Amino acid sequence: MSDRDLTDGAFGSSGDFNHAGFTHLDPMGRARMVDVTPKEASHRRAMARAKVHMDPETASAVARGAITKGDVLAVARVAGIQGAKRTSDLIPLCHPLLIGAVTINFEIGESHIEIETQVDTVGRTGVEMEALTACSVAALTIYDMCKSIDKGMTIGDIALWEKTGGKSGPYRRAK
Amino acid sequence: MSDRDLTDGAFGSSGDFNHAGFTHLDPMGRARMVDVTPKEASHRRAMARAKVHMDPETASAVARGAITKGDVLAVARVAGIQGAKRTSDLIPLCHPLLIGAVTINFEIGESHIEIETQVDTVGRTGVEMEALTACSVAALTIYDMCKSIDKGMTIGDIALWEKTGGKSGPYRRAK
Amino acid sequence: MSDRDLTDGAFGSSGDFNHAGFTHLDPMGRARMVDVTPKEASHRRAMARAKVHMDPETASAVARGAITKGDVLAVARVAGIQGAKRTSDLIPLCHPLLIGAVTINFEIGESHIEIETQVDTVGRTGVEMEALTACSVAALTIYDMCKSIDKGMTIGDIALWEKTGGKSGPYRRAK
Amino acid sequence: MSDRDLTDGAFGSSGDFNHAGFTHLDPMGRARMVDVTPKEASHRRAMARAKVHMDPETASAVARGAITKGDVLAVARVAGIQGAKRTSDLIPLCHPLLIGAVTINFEIGESHIEIETQVDTVGRTGVEMEALTACSVAALTIYDMCKSIDKGMTIGDIALWEKTGGKSGPYRRAK
Amino acid sequence: MSDRDLTDGAFGSSGDFNHAGFTHLDPMGRARMVDVTPKEASHRRAMARAKVHMDPETASAVARGAITKGDVLAVARVAGIQGAKRTSDLIPLCHPLLIGAVTINFEIGESHIEIETQVDTVGRTGVEMEALTACSVAALTIYDMCKSIDKGMTIGDIALWEKTGGKSGPYRRAK
Amino acid sequence: MSDRDLTDGAFGSSGDFNHAGFTHLDPMGRARMVDVTPKEASHRRAMARAKVHMDPETASAVARGAITKGDVLAVARVAGIQGAKRTSDLIPLCHPLLIGAVTINFEIGESHIEIETQVDTVGRTGVEMEALTACSVAALTIYDMCKSIDKGMTIGDIALWEKTGGKSGPYRRAK
Repeated sequence: MSDRDLTDGAFGSSGDFNHAGFTHLDPMGRARMVDVTPKEASHRRAMARAKVHMDPETASAVARGAITKGDVLAVARVAGIQGAKRTSDLIPLCHPLLIGAVTINFEIGESHIEIETQVDTVGRTGVEMEALTACSVAALTIYDMCKSIDKGMTIGDIALWEKTGGKSGPYRRAK
Repeated sequence: MSDRDLTDGAFGSSGDFNHAGFTHLDPMGRARMVDVTPKEASHRRAMARAKVHMDPETASAVARGAITKGDVLAVARVAGIQGAKRTSDLIPLCHPLLIGAVTINFEIGESHIEIETQVDTVGRTGVEMEALTACSVAALTIYDMCKSIDKGMTIGDIALWEKTGGKSGPYRRAK
Repeated sequence: MSDRDLTDGAFGSSGDFNHAGFTHLDPMGRARMVDVTPKEASHRRAMARAKVHMDPETASAVARGAITKGDVLAVARVAGIQGAKRTSDLIPLCHPLLIGAVTINFEIGESHIEIETQVDTVGRTGVEMEALTACSVAALTIYDMCKSIDKGMTIGDIALWEKTGGKSGPYRRAK
Repeated sequence: MSDRDLTDGAFGSSGDFNHAGFTHLDPMGRARMVDVTPKEASHRRAMARAKVHMDPETASAVARGAITKGDVLAVARVAGIQGAKRTSDLIPLCHPLLIGAVTINFEIGESHIEIETQVDTVGRTGVEMEALTACSVAALTIYDMCKSIDKGMTIGDIALWEKTGGKSGPYRRAK
Repeated sequence: MSDRDLTDGAFGSSGDFNHAGFTHLDPMGRARMVDVTPKEASHRRAMARAKVHMDPETASAVARGAITKGDVLAVARVAGIQGAKRTSDLIPLCHPLLIGAVTINFEIGESHIEIETQVDTVGRTGVEMEALTACSVAALTIYDMCKSIDKGMTIGDIALWEKTGGKSGPYRRAK
Repeated sequence: MSDRDLTDGAFGSSGDFNHAGFTHLDPMGRARMVDVTPKEASHRRAMARAKVHMDPETASAVARGAITKGDVLAVARVAGIQGAKRTSDLIPLCHPLLIGAVTINFEIGESHIEIETQVDTVGRTGVEMEALTACSVAALTIYDMCKSIDKGMTIGDIALWEKTGGKSGPYRRAK
């Protein structure tokens, strides 16, 4: 058996899937973790943002807690940092990498909290998923901690804002 | 020492934090996992939604893959289900619970993919964080799998839509 | 939007998949974690076995170590027990449950090691996947610990031998 | 094969190990996760303490941070709570259980920080390992956050102070 | 105490264990994670296979699902990829490493499904355990998804087929 | 928004926190994972110790088990090695790294068991937290396995004894 190619009977041998540039899919449309071993390790950074929209009363209660000693944002910051470290465990086709730095900052608006995360690494693959995961987990933690007073919150505007390092060149979000 | 109360020197004994209804904070503003042991185990359900906004070309490439054999949404569905099971590991003050069912559905629009998750359990605490986490992880997975063709995607509208079971009565999002 | 059903545009509305009794797939062939919340919690048990085939020299080296103080099987036993506890984390559609007992035993043959695992729980779903996962992880650990002297080992005969509890009645493997 | 007992050739059939009351070892000295399925689920609580000994300068730097806005203890509290939830993942023969509440408090002394954890559950097994693990992880986190200014810290006095619930009756540490 | 060697009273000082080439055991038979720090990082690859034996009806139901839209193999593929990333978490003495690529393919036979996994990395240690773990987790997932229609399935023939990179030279399974 | 700095409204813009050399806190006292990407990867090692104090009867029961076939210390050794690999998952601001070697030894005294761990890596950051975590998890495992016969055990003297590699130079504990 070792001298023949296994063909994936499951998804046919037709190869008719136009995979349209999806690097995480092979020519037959099957998921794969794309090979990064030929890439050089280099310094990479990504910055992402998200917003948790909430009642003005909720936002100001978080702000009051922050000014005195409430832990909402401190807990969300720790959760986001740990979430960044679990990215490849959560996102099936993400490559594991050694995160070199994470910072998470918050800005409290009138009816939202904005989250900004930055992740750095020296590695073969970018850290945009790590920055976005940190945003998402921090946002979910804020939701969890405020949901007893405000169930209507929504999480939105999760987006990559900057990405540097790697061969594809820097990316900077227009708006 | 066993006969005296430890007072948290770290955050003072003043107790001056107005914790404003945050059940995850004690009267002094310190994080805690609120006690659910007095609650009765009962059937609970939550339903949440999210949207991944993308270029129309990206959405139709995902749709084409789905119609033929592309794995983007199948991978995102598995990731979302597994994400639901990790909720208490990701969100620091979330209680562990035994998820009894998870379903995740997708609807592809012209320039977005909508995600809908439903989670059921029999337990002492609600599953809204599990439904929201499933949405978030599925959305991040879609982002990951499409980012080679569209870096400008944003994830938004992550919100709880329904919640039933438990003493506080059903919740249904207005809009 | 809350008043309409999301239909999964990704996989069409045709529902033409004959799901052939696969409870982990919905009528349209999409993965789901089947709902166990209507089931009663009851005592359940499963017993599984596996074999690691190896050179006679390898088997007797393991046996010698076991008789004196080598840790191969002690390490494999711990790994198998911990593997059982991670089953729902590894197998995407497995329900989390609270394992109540795990025992793992080994028998060294002339050119194989046989593994037998038994898992018990009180819960809404069976523990056959936990017993099989414990077998698999214990077998992989034996492979890992012996591979420096024998790369040709194979793991086989991983099978469920007994299952009791639950509404479907007991299962006992014929041979 | 199904009709005979597997005997663990690895550790002999002699059964000569006097297991001396170790419930985690079978009569032949092999590790097992003891069967808790016959036990009734009941409310259980455990309280544990630990101390991180440090230079007076370190302790007062932590105290200053706590009074203003330093995150050392807030981070340690989150880490301890999350550590409690991972206990059965870390300690091989620990049973998984659903933690119902965790609280962690700190007291800053002249040259140490004392940690006190309390864990509650409704379940078939006690939560002393969860309380002790929460102490240990919180202590390690304090060490990690202060090690840039004080490498000589030691962690000690990790002990169970109280345990209630379960058939064996309450335990209260003498001193 | 710092100036003397700790001898492991637990397992005696006799060193009489003939460790027979087991690199994961020290001369006294105690488990250890062998030191790979002196090795050079290099490109490494491993390929493994496994078979899930099943009733012909089960195999053809999986095949039908795959041709239309059933998710059995897509779910197993994701599970296998994620399993590869957890290898060092599951196998106690495995070194953590950064997986650079994973591909998993399936071939459906008359009464079995064959799984083939390939894993690549640039690192100090081989990836055979990762390839074997991916096989095992994919096989367990197939079992889980088909067990409602076929409890008698067995998993077998889990074996390493190729290994390249590292100082020990390439390995290729004979048959 | 992309052209302005987010300031963390949560913790004020005052920057008045004297962070006193805590590298894990930014100038405003907020937790961060400090950036190690500018550092060179180099060989690093750490050695730590801990003691589990217990009744002489407990210590000699462990010793007896060790001499014959009891698994207390074998299980604790495996748990400690696996704990070392989870350090960055447990300690929020710890950097992930690729552990290259772990050894754990035990010495049984009259009324205690001493644990010694050594961890090696080639990386950008030290492994003292890994060595300390291995000690802690091994100690907790010993507690867990002996608690049925001795609830009064305490874990203490967890300390870093040696650390080499990295720019800050070697550290050796005085006593």
